[in-house]
Amino acid sequence: MQHIYFDEKKKVLKLLDQRYLPSREDWFECAGTEDIVYALQQMVIRGAPAIGVTAAYGCVLAALESGGTSTWEATLEKNLELIEHARPTAANLAWAVRGMQDAWRSKSIFSSEELADFWLQEALSLHQEDIRINKMIGAHGRELLDSGDTVMTHCNAGALATGGYGTALGVVRAAVEQGKEIRVIANETRPFLQGARLTAYELAGDNIPVRVACDNACGLLMQKGLVQKVVVGADRIAANGDTANKIGTYPLAVMAQRHGILFYVAAPFSTFDAKTPSGWYIPIEQRDPGEVKYMAGQMIMPRDVDVYNYAFDVTPQELISGIITEKGVFAPGELA
Amino acid sequence: MQHIYFDEKKKVLKLLDQRYLPSREDWFECAGTEDIVYALQQMVIRGAPAIGVTAAYGCVLAALESGGTSTWEATLEKNLELIEHARPTAANLAWAVRGMQDAWRSKSIFSSEELADFWLQEALSLHQEDIRINKMIGAHGRELLDSGDTVMTHCNAGALATGGYGTALGVVRAAVEQGKEIRVIANETRPFLQGARLTAYELAGDNIPVRVACDNACGLLMQKGLVQKVVVGADRIAANGDTANKIGTYPLAVMAQRHGILFYVAAPFSTFDAKTPSGWYIPIEQRDPGEVKYMAGQMIMPRDVDVYNYAFDVTPQELISGIITEKGVFAPGELA
Repeated sequence: MQHIYFDEKKKVLKLLDQRYLPSREDWFECAGTEDIVYALQQMVIRGAPAIGVTAAYGCVLAALESGGTSTWEATLEKNLELIEHARPTAANLAWAVRGMQDAWRSKSIFSSEELADFWLQEALSLHQEDIRINKMIGAHGRELLDSGDTVMTHCNAGALATGGYGTALGVVRAAVEQGKEIRVIANETRPFLQGARLTAYELAGDNIPVRVACDNACGLLMQKGLVQKVVVGADRIAANGDTANKIGTYPLAVMAQRHGILFYVAAPFSTFDAKTPSGWYIPIEQRDPGEVKYMAGQMIMPRDVDVYNYAFDVTPQELISGIITEKGVFAPGELA
Repeated sequence: MQHIYFDEKKKVLKLLDQRYLPSREDWFECAGTEDIVYALQQMVIRGAPAIGVTAAYGCVLAALESGGTSTWEATLEKNLELIEHARPTAANLAWAVRGMQDAWRSKSIFSSEELADFWLQEALSLHQEDIRINKMIGAHGRELLDSGDTVMTHCNAGALATGGYGTALGVVRAAVEQGKEIRVIANETRPFLQGARLTAYELAGDNIPVRVACDNACGLLMQKGLVQKVVVGADRIAANGDTANKIGTYPLAVMAQRHGILFYVAAPFSTFDAKTPSGWYIPIEQRDPGEVKYMAGQMIMPRDVDVYNYAFDVTPQELISGIITEKGVFAPGELA
């Protein structure tokens, strides 16, 4: 399933629109910076590694649209800024945009057309590299799972959250490919329902047994002994190992600790942000109240009542049993 | 707001239909046992004390419909059984039905009509008594709240969950009536959304400041210092103080303990079940998967994927700071 696809003929980035999955498989076309920013902010695509891959292709579109004048570099700079700041929490967004800029600096490139060509090759290889990294995360992580395990996961850290294959779901996939019997409980993950909509969709598509539960059922399911491991993705890992991930991850980690269940984070090194000393410094995005207030177009609460809609929370490093990366499994403090 | 109302002329019980609040204020009419069982099972009405009040009125309808034959007592017995077992977790259901039966035993009653008349007076007084008890719970509980507190609550333990006034929300109401400034964070409470739909509706109606949050935001909101107290209701309290309440209460209690936030249960003595030694023996209802799979009539996950839909979880007594009852505030172990 390739859900991010650069159409070289039409010069557009095609994204499988995650807002409507699994009921509709629509493709969203990005022709320039504005579309990329919209796609990121409206969560046409989401998941830290996928945001990074999208941003890399976004740089290509930004280069294409900035061409034709003598001030193209200034225009480009402004567009790259817009992409880099489309969302505040995922470390992979700035990592990708800055990575593209760094690659450019080491080359002699004199026009926006030349830059777009160069960046397209960079973006394609970053995309392929992301899939390769996910498979390496899977190869390291699967050793932590035992046949017969039920893995609880939160949000979607699967193929749809990455260039392909997935981080947390990559670990599950790799274990299944190894012949292990793994079941998954996908927390539905309010308000955007990435677990119910995307994780369940991906795993069912791969014939990996999956069951959906409301986020607040985690305590009971653990009490009943129905969960052996928890594996989640990450949006930003601070220097000390504190990890920002989809809202609800922190209570899940606390419940796992209480029940003696190992709690793993699976993420590429691009999610690690050495400049952020601890979780307290990670900016937490607040999103549109409408995401909580409406469901399937229907208002589910009194119109005038306000909501909280923080998109992420921070799991303190002491609750994390290990961080599964492409270079192996690390204790949270070891990454710095 | 009287949401349970026995129409003596038409001999029907009218219930404000909680499935459609706050978008529609429909009334559901119960003319007999079948309607009562339907209303309880489909959650036209819910909340342990409200279930008890409804069951008491349900006994009146059961008596009315069993009349006319020499075997009316056997028919009645069967109907009472159906009501008593409509839902398994709330202690107040059996408490109410058995209470009506006990009251009958002490009287000389020879016909179903006579019994219905007698039971109607009993049900009306049980209903009034429930409201009085809630106000006493409020009077005891408000001493635990400080002006300026934000109280997090889960599900709906308000007027709509009781004969009127509410248990957990009764505590909030009583504190506000005392002149304290209290704000409430209502967890939306998936899958039935009692928090978003009912708690927010009740409190907004009373001009008590309320904000809705997804259940999985509890960790972040506590980390941010936005919660000073947690007050919830109860569906059954075991002899040792372990408390069954709406799914998600247990993780909330664990998070409150981690953050040094006092966690209170507010419930009438009718919720206390001395015959159940601990939480492990409380039957936990599993409900229709459709409640999780559909939202506003739209399927939010792949059709063939299964779900968990346990309706309650059990909070171990050591996580409970106090149980607020009509007789005062008790340590969980003190109730037995």
